[in-house]
Amino acid sequence: MRRFYQLLQIALIAIPLLAMRQDKPLRVIFFGDSITQAGVSPTGYITKMTEMLKAAGQDSQFELAGAGIGGNKVYDLYLRLEDDVLSKKPDVVFIYVGINDVWHKTSSGTGTDPDKYVKFYEALIKKMKAQNIRIIVCTPTVIGEKNDNSNAQDGDLNEYSKLIRDIAKRNNLELCDLRKYFGDYLVKNNPENKDKGILTSDRVHLTDEGNKFLAERMMEALVKVK
Amino acid sequence: MRRFYQLLQIALIAIPLLAMRQDKPLRVIFFGDSITQAGVSPTGYITKMTEMLKAAGQDSQFELAGAGIGGNKVYDLYLRLEDDVLSKKPDVVFIYVGINDVWHKTSSGTGTDPDKYVKFYEALIKKMKAQNIRIIVCTPTVIGEKNDNSNAQDGDLNEYSKLIRDIAKRNNLELCDLRKYFGDYLVKNNPENKDKGILTSDRVHLTDEGNKFLAERMMEALVKVK
Amino acid sequence: MRRFYQLLQIALIAIPLLAMRQDKPLRVIFFGDSITQAGVSPTGYITKMTEMLKAAGQDSQFELAGAGIGGNKVYDLYLRLEDDVLSKKPDVVFIYVGINDVWHKTSSGTGTDPDKYVKFYEALIKKMKAQNIRIIVCTPTVIGEKNDNSNAQDGDLNEYSKLIRDIAKRNNLELCDLRKYFGDYLVKNNPENKDKGILTSDRVHLTDEGNKFLAERMMEALVKVK
Amino acid sequence: MRRFYQLLQIALIAIPLLAMRQDKPLRVIFFGDSITQAGVSPTGYITKMTEMLKAAGQDSQFELAGAGIGGNKVYDLYLRLEDDVLSKKPDVVFIYVGINDVWHKTSSGTGTDPDKYVKFYEALIKKMKAQNIRIIVCTPTVIGEKNDNSNAQDGDLNEYSKLIRDIAKRNNLELCDLRKYFGDYLVKNNPENKDKGILTSDRVHLTDEGNKFLAERMMEALVKVK
Repeated sequence: MRRFYQLLQIALIAIPLLAMRQDKPLRVIFFGDSITQAGVSPTGYITKMTEMLKAAGQDSQFELAGAGIGGNKVYDLYLRLEDDVLSKKPDVVFIYVGINDVWHKTSSGTGTDPDKYVKFYEALIKKMKAQNIRIIVCTPTVIGEKNDNSNAQDGDLNEYSKLIRDIAKRNNLELCDLRKYFGDYLVKNNPENKDKGILTSDRVHLTDEGNKFLAERMMEALVKVK
Repeated sequence: MRRFYQLLQIALIAIPLLAMRQDKPLRVIFFGDSITQAGVSPTGYITKMTEMLKAAGQDSQFELAGAGIGGNKVYDLYLRLEDDVLSKKPDVVFIYVGINDVWHKTSSGTGTDPDKYVKFYEALIKKMKAQNIRIIVCTPTVIGEKNDNSNAQDGDLNEYSKLIRDIAKRNNLELCDLRKYFGDYLVKNNPENKDKGILTSDRVHLTDEGNKFLAERMMEALVKVK
Repeated sequence: MRRFYQLLQIALIAIPLLAMRQDKPLRVIFFGDSITQAGVSPTGYITKMTEMLKAAGQDSQFELAGAGIGGNKVYDLYLRLEDDVLSKKPDVVFIYVGINDVWHKTSSGTGTDPDKYVKFYEALIKKMKAQNIRIIVCTPTVIGEKNDNSNAQDGDLNEYSKLIRDIAKRNNLELCDLRKYFGDYLVKNNPENKDKGILTSDRVHLTDEGNKFLAERMMEALVKVK
Repeated sequence: MRRFYQLLQIALIAIPLLAMRQDKPLRVIFFGDSITQAGVSPTGYITKMTEMLKAAGQDSQFELAGAGIGGNKVYDLYLRLEDDVLSKKPDVVFIYVGINDVWHKTSSGTGTDPDKYVKFYEALIKKMKAQNIRIIVCTPTVIGEKNDNSNAQDGDLNEYSKLIRDIAKRNNLELCDLRKYFGDYLVKNNPENKDKGILTSDRVHLTDEGNKFLAERMMEALVKVK
């Protein structure tokens, strides 16, 4: 954690960020589902990112906003892209969606086929690119924290993560590979192979530890520490 | 059947159709799923409609085209609306989609939530209206032909049909209420309450009888016999 | 309601019940899911039945017990038949199961195929008959209270109800056709065609009105008023 | 392969098999789903095992029989245990079931909950043990051959495999860990990470190579080479 703040300090000061080259703060929107909706709560990951920026004396340079709605799938983002993102004229958008696309397959029979997932994802990207938005795509985190690929949706989450990595490459976008980060973390920090209680409280939504971990990974992606 | 042709004759001759007021034939696109994809086959419902127009000597006034793709749900139509419909500059479009939105809930876990169904349906309509297309919306036919509401998806199909009827009202559109027509037909013509074999060969896709019945209902909607 | 009590009075007094021909009270077990689990709560349908018997001065003749567990499907009943039913030596058993067999198809992907439903249902019956238990089979009530067959699972619930009616006939068992009773009631008493709030609080579990209605229907079946 | 036959030769000759200590051949039943149903076809894994025994001159010592039915889940095996297995008086039974328990969750909404899977599995075991049958439990093979845990059902298949390994330990049974064997094989032999075409023709059912591989693993388990 200390090392992270040192790196962050360096990154925020030394790197000539877009934010610093302009008069107004860099507007960053997090576009996603219930995890992002909770991200703006007092203990949420977006709130924590704002706090990190304050601690580094950089909060005037950034304006972070959440655009998360519970239960959203990729095409829900598509349907509200104009209203909730484009109209806000953001400089940067994190796209963090996919958990419900997979989960709803068994929880309500209304998940998203992989090919449609990609089509709507790229439709989002096309419209954002047309507005010169810097796009950072995130792989989905977890549905269950077991670290040996034995959570029911692991196969699908791994597959959709590969689809997102391919989308990033194909569209020359930055990738914040949350699924990989969460996986690596859980291999080290979930010795009892529990289903929940480490980074999530209920297999999906984040604990304080989870929000902190997510905030750091998002921040690294934003300021390109890594 | 004879009565139908008499009515059709009258309708095609007596009613001052849009088609007749213009130099070129009325371009009609059927926008849908596998049923519509099969509609252009030699025995398909679109082919039969063309034959009906020929028999009435009106085939030069109409140009019927299929735009059906197997497995399509409402948002698949949305994704290919520009390429497969708008770019063809149709005068009339039949939207006939919903079976897969319901069916895929259990066959692959990727059906469409009712609220999303409506949103994408109305997104289709909005874009077509902007091009002054005459839109005829169709309720979904059947998944199973039992006539006592005991086919597994009957509840959902009835609900999505109500959603479409509401869409029609709200957007002031013509309705071709196929689900009602099929239901009424099966009450009369399926005395053994069979699952398939009357209007469908496999609970969904149409027999010759089914294609004929569908062609007549579509024709009535097109020429406003009823 | 008054008429019901009159009939009940007559039935309990006039008809030479099994209960009356023996020294000990008639032991009745209600075997089912969460609705039955809640049936023994202070406002539950089984509690209400006991109260009805008390009001008629017949409570010493009957001993009603619940054997309901939330989420149970037909094969869950099978797995705990010995422990929860046969070992209690009941005189009468109401089998009231099917909602989860249908519902779990979309809520968790683990519903019950119709043919397996029948097989396990008849396996239950076979074992109970071997112990000379009087069996009363119940059709499943509702998942959603709309009265026009537009609740998502209506098709399946209608189908499984038909399967139970067939089972009753084939095995010469008494039928308590709850689905029909609920349906008829909702046609009359749900003029706004609401999804819930009449007999159920959440589309499935019973309101006080629902418990009362169910108690009366069960009582009629038990004492053969109808 | 040559090494395998050498080991098999040694095993069949040197080890005092149950089969050799009795007058009649050892009766082995393979109890499972469509893969096992196809196992008795001319190119199926059971047929191949019989051929292996012939090649080793041991075919008079063994009598291999298939009891596989397409689409079967664990409780289907339970329902036909008496008729298809116990009544045949086998010495050894391979239980190889689980693919449909997982697969049907999305293909028809009628998969098996993990806890019910275990309950019925152990109910099978209990009844077989009462008849002194030597039981060999198999983990499920694959639904999709990608070797990086990105097939949609991998999470669930891994979980159900763990459940079976636990069942084996808890009940002191031999384990034929097919899922592990297939996984290891595919890491080495599926360099393009294809979905099918190595051990399976359609992601589930076996190619000739798959049947051969399965036959060898089953044979090793039967004669305890490993």
